[in-house]
Amino acid sequence: MQLGMIGLGRMGANMVRRLMKGGHDCVVFDASPDAVQALAAEGATGADSLQAFVAALQPPRAVWVMVPAGVVDGMVAEVKALLEPGDILIDGGNSYYIDDIRRAEELARDGLRYLDVGTSGGVWGLERGYCLMIGGDTAAVQSLDPIFKTLAPGQGDIPPAPGRAAGGTAEQGYLHCGPAGAGHFVKMIHNGIEYGMMAAFAEGFNIMKRANIGKNDHSHDAETTPLRHPEHYQYDLPLADIAELWRRGSVVASWLLDLTANALTESPALEEFSGKVSDSGEGRWTIHAAIDQGTPAPVLSASAFQRFASRGEDEFACKLLSALRYQFGGHREKK
Amino acid sequence: MQLGMIGLGRMGANMVRRLMKGGHDCVVFDASPDAVQALAAEGATGADSLQAFVAALQPPRAVWVMVPAGVVDGMVAEVKALLEPGDILIDGGNSYYIDDIRRAEELARDGLRYLDVGTSGGVWGLERGYCLMIGGDTAAVQSLDPIFKTLAPGQGDIPPAPGRAAGGTAEQGYLHCGPAGAGHFVKMIHNGIEYGMMAAFAEGFNIMKRANIGKNDHSHDAETTPLRHPEHYQYDLPLADIAELWRRGSVVASWLLDLTANALTESPALEEFSGKVSDSGEGRWTIHAAIDQGTPAPVLSASAFQRFASRGEDEFACKLLSALRYQFGGHREKK
Amino acid sequence: MQLGMIGLGRMGANMVRRLMKGGHDCVVFDASPDAVQALAAEGATGADSLQAFVAALQPPRAVWVMVPAGVVDGMVAEVKALLEPGDILIDGGNSYYIDDIRRAEELARDGLRYLDVGTSGGVWGLERGYCLMIGGDTAAVQSLDPIFKTLAPGQGDIPPAPGRAAGGTAEQGYLHCGPAGAGHFVKMIHNGIEYGMMAAFAEGFNIMKRANIGKNDHSHDAETTPLRHPEHYQYDLPLADIAELWRRGSVVASWLLDLTANALTESPALEEFSGKVSDSGEGRWTIHAAIDQGTPAPVLSASAFQRFASRGEDEFACKLLSALRYQFGGHREKK
Amino acid sequence: MQLGMIGLGRMGANMVRRLMKGGHDCVVFDASPDAVQALAAEGATGADSLQAFVAALQPPRAVWVMVPAGVVDGMVAEVKALLEPGDILIDGGNSYYIDDIRRAEELARDGLRYLDVGTSGGVWGLERGYCLMIGGDTAAVQSLDPIFKTLAPGQGDIPPAPGRAAGGTAEQGYLHCGPAGAGHFVKMIHNGIEYGMMAAFAEGFNIMKRANIGKNDHSHDAETTPLRHPEHYQYDLPLADIAELWRRGSVVASWLLDLTANALTESPALEEFSGKVSDSGEGRWTIHAAIDQGTPAPVLSASAFQRFASRGEDEFACKLLSALRYQFGGHREKK
Repeated sequence: MQLGMIGLGRMGANMVRRLMKGGHDCVVFDASPDAVQALAAEGATGADSLQAFVAALQPPRAVWVMVPAGVVDGMVAEVKALLEPGDILIDGGNSYYIDDIRRAEELARDGLRYLDVGTSGGVWGLERGYCLMIGGDTAAVQSLDPIFKTLAPGQGDIPPAPGRAAGGTAEQGYLHCGPAGAGHFVKMIHNGIEYGMMAAFAEGFNIMKRANIGKNDHSHDAETTPLRHPEHYQYDLPLADIAELWRRGSVVASWLLDLTANALTESPALEEFSGKVSDSGEGRWTIHAAIDQGTPAPVLSASAFQRFASRGEDEFACKLLSALRYQFGGHREKK
Repeated sequence: MQLGMIGLGRMGANMVRRLMKGGHDCVVFDASPDAVQALAAEGATGADSLQAFVAALQPPRAVWVMVPAGVVDGMVAEVKALLEPGDILIDGGNSYYIDDIRRAEELARDGLRYLDVGTSGGVWGLERGYCLMIGGDTAAVQSLDPIFKTLAPGQGDIPPAPGRAAGGTAEQGYLHCGPAGAGHFVKMIHNGIEYGMMAAFAEGFNIMKRANIGKNDHSHDAETTPLRHPEHYQYDLPLADIAELWRRGSVVASWLLDLTANALTESPALEEFSGKVSDSGEGRWTIHAAIDQGTPAPVLSASAFQRFASRGEDEFACKLLSALRYQFGGHREKK
Repeated sequence: MQLGMIGLGRMGANMVRRLMKGGHDCVVFDASPDAVQALAAEGATGADSLQAFVAALQPPRAVWVMVPAGVVDGMVAEVKALLEPGDILIDGGNSYYIDDIRRAEELARDGLRYLDVGTSGGVWGLERGYCLMIGGDTAAVQSLDPIFKTLAPGQGDIPPAPGRAAGGTAEQGYLHCGPAGAGHFVKMIHNGIEYGMMAAFAEGFNIMKRANIGKNDHSHDAETTPLRHPEHYQYDLPLADIAELWRRGSVVASWLLDLTANALTESPALEEFSGKVSDSGEGRWTIHAAIDQGTPAPVLSASAFQRFASRGEDEFACKLLSALRYQFGGHREKK
Repeated sequence: MQLGMIGLGRMGANMVRRLMKGGHDCVVFDASPDAVQALAAEGATGADSLQAFVAALQPPRAVWVMVPAGVVDGMVAEVKALLEPGDILIDGGNSYYIDDIRRAEELARDGLRYLDVGTSGGVWGLERGYCLMIGGDTAAVQSLDPIFKTLAPGQGDIPPAPGRAAGGTAEQGYLHCGPAGAGHFVKMIHNGIEYGMMAAFAEGFNIMKRANIGKNDHSHDAETTPLRHPEHYQYDLPLADIAELWRRGSVVASWLLDLTANALTESPALEEFSGKVSDSGEGRWTIHAAIDQGTPAPVLSASAFQRFASRGEDEFACKLLSALRYQFGGHREKK
């Protein structure tokens, strides 16, 4: 079927490619004419304006918007003015689900249908398919089923959970999760969990990296806790091998572990990274949701705070700790 | 080759079965004659005493001990008295690596070689193979290579990380990690990571479970924070479907997610569980190691504390919090 | 000077008493005629309706609203309709500072001035005075200086920090912190810190309470980590004495420690408390602010989550942890 | 009475001064002759060798050792050789209580009595007195009561908790907490709590410091979460004033808050501190104890991990997080 795609960055462009490979018709638009050009060369219908883009789509139109979360509202406003009742607008980016609830209401006033689609897959999606978490009106979701099916990874060689009733779409890698916002809510939690899992690996590998700390000299002074048993920390552990090992038969086998093995094989000391870790919204929103609900989330929040601290956002806090140590004990900071 | 196995619980018995299927000769002993009987009936050489067990093994003997961590030392002492220089004693249980360091030294004084093997695989190991993390003397490890190869899962359909040098054993699912204790050190960290990953899933699914909290009545009083936006928490999310969904193409795809899908398919509300979560040592030791090293482990420790609290170990702390609220604000606990 | 007080609960009534003792004129209103009656008997001007209340105040009026956070907006709307330009409305409750920003803007459109005053002092305020954190228009704050000065504790026997410039109000126990919302922002952080400090005491006393855990029998099985060194946990510590001790010369000396000593003296085992700990908003909002800012707050958030968990809000998470342990290891929960 | 003091650093020297002011006789020794000289000039009996030191004390001797934790064992061994049955050896430093248990046993074999005394007071102790947490043999503790009473702050103007039975020593600022190790156990927990309280203040003041973050430009890109409501973060809060304010009538009033006010008055931006925060043992040991016991300590451990991270000990963990983000999403670190 036909789909219009606005936003041809890494994600949007590859999704168009996957759709075309699956036999769908794609109309594409992007602020960059080069991006449009590139996909037109691969078979898409390129549009050089939003007007041309909308005109090239048959009603009821399906318009997928794949732009940074911060500019979705602007884009929705522009497109909305050009659409007609019955058209479907899909936000496939990383919107906050609370914005979805609002947008769905606003667009419904004009007879437009809004779907929010949380999309996991990153740079690997073109090849592996995109895991799609969908929120919004049921009829609209069903009408786009062929699109979702093509974008999704499909069942592959992963058998459904034993006892699972046949016939759902989850085992194909896409799912209608609930009304407006449900797609991005589930994607938000997905990313929150992702942060926690990443942190679990990061902390564990760091402890293994430092398993040889007993080989260092440690001074004995009042400002430093001496290592009581240096003989317990004499290991130079082969981290890349361990990641590779755990991929087979261990409890922590996971795609993130596969990527850990890749990363440590490429660069055992990871020296090209500074360790200032970004975070892109969903992790934070997960904590907001947990706090609103009164749901404990110590692990997910610790993983978010770790990232904040990696960027130095705890600077004043740490200075105050040192200042207090100086105030009550005359302790000077170590150089 | 020949291997002696002491301890025929779930793990030990299945390892013997996997070894025999791989063509190895197994001599077995257990405190329970029935357990010995059962494996003898499947082809193992049963022994009705430790003496008979040791006598049935050709020197240099390889004796694998697979008993609860709390009783390893007693068993090692008993067996040690019967072994001869050059024999190899393997602890495949969940020992603290610090005990391995000590035992290796003690046994070396008698010419015995000690290997520590962290084993992941649980009830699934017979079928999937056991992921083996090995510590100890290199020559001893190499002499047992056929045993490890058979127990391990093998490469299966998981290609090694791109760029990985050929010829290691990690991609077969077993690895010599370093000197005495290194195997259980790596297994300890593995379990620490496992705790963190499990907690990430548990917290995330809990937030999703409670995504309908806005449907409840909430009273307005000074002891309760009212939910500011109940309209943001109106979702009845299909948790088992979401677990199934994420297994395909998402960043959190993992064996633990597969098991989450299984668990939620079998029992969507998990009502047969009380939520008192056990912890069996390695998670705690991981924190001990992190603290000794001065390595931050906020996520791994939060996951351990969560389990402690689930069993009510925070009771007095919480009572004191309520008592303080009463002291300074006259706040009474809600019923 | 004259002040009108709406809301004669524990806090509002005692503030009126402190103001009258300081020579101020109070007009009072409450939904409960009895509450009005009681204070009228002590010298306040009682009003039996909001209309009568407003009529009894001389313009420019100063109306202090001291009602639960959840009903402030309704009350503000009612009062606003009766006030005149130049009048000052003070919210002394536990409002979210974001509501203050909104309310100040809305009231300004009608020429009304809005102050937000975070108030610490609880049941002790009548005697000790109330620590006041004030946000809003500078002229309005200054015009109410006599009120704030009377409510506040005053300098007492606490000398200002060495080197502090003379002449501020902070050393009197009240402070204009900034524009609209600043008062409740600072109060919010105050309570966030309070949660963290309370948790520090609660955890520390719990570890001391359990310092005799080595005296218990511990079974050795695969589901329980045996205590490696029971001889290290043989102390029956005198908790109330320790709290009393630390009040003198220790680094943790604090009002919360004084209250801990009180609580443990009254009831050493705290058996009249269930340990289900409430939380009343500011602790949560502190985390929201930290997350919005990208500021790490691992300690403050851990203390909030601890309270959530104490009320069982982690139930499904813990059930899932047990379910996963059963899935991968066949582990059954302990009874 | 007479007391011998070994170790005349900041703590030891000031304790001798306080004892002499209280009328006690002090014999002093230190590796540095200058330190001995200085106190001899103030009235102490200086000794230029351990032999001379011991000879100058009347049996049963009371020898207080005040040296860094890392060198206590060496000093105890040296002194032990010179003492006689019935003599008392006091470790007033920051020993691990587990070492106390061992030392008390070892010394008892030679008829010597060992006391462990956790001492809080730092640079302020000379003036305020030292809060003393004492472990060991009851008779030995009682025989030194005059020493403890003088060192301790005394009741001062702090009335005991209401209802407290009269006649204890806790209200004088010293307490026999239990058998060997109990003193340092209680001191350890004291410091663990101190870390948690300090972190609570540090995090809270950091959030207030950053309350103006909405004034900064924020770019909108996929790597950064834009601040949704910059209008909520426009406050330039007067941090030193707020600390001063809270000292009066607020729930967080405490000595640490007094010191926070001092520090922020001296240096509002704390620019002379780097923010690399040391930790000196007890905080870590508190977590070890919590883990051994299975007691949740999320707040105390978070405060320890924060310090580790402030010193860069999370570097490899953070690099791995960035590496994983690059692996799955092609995300490059921000400059």
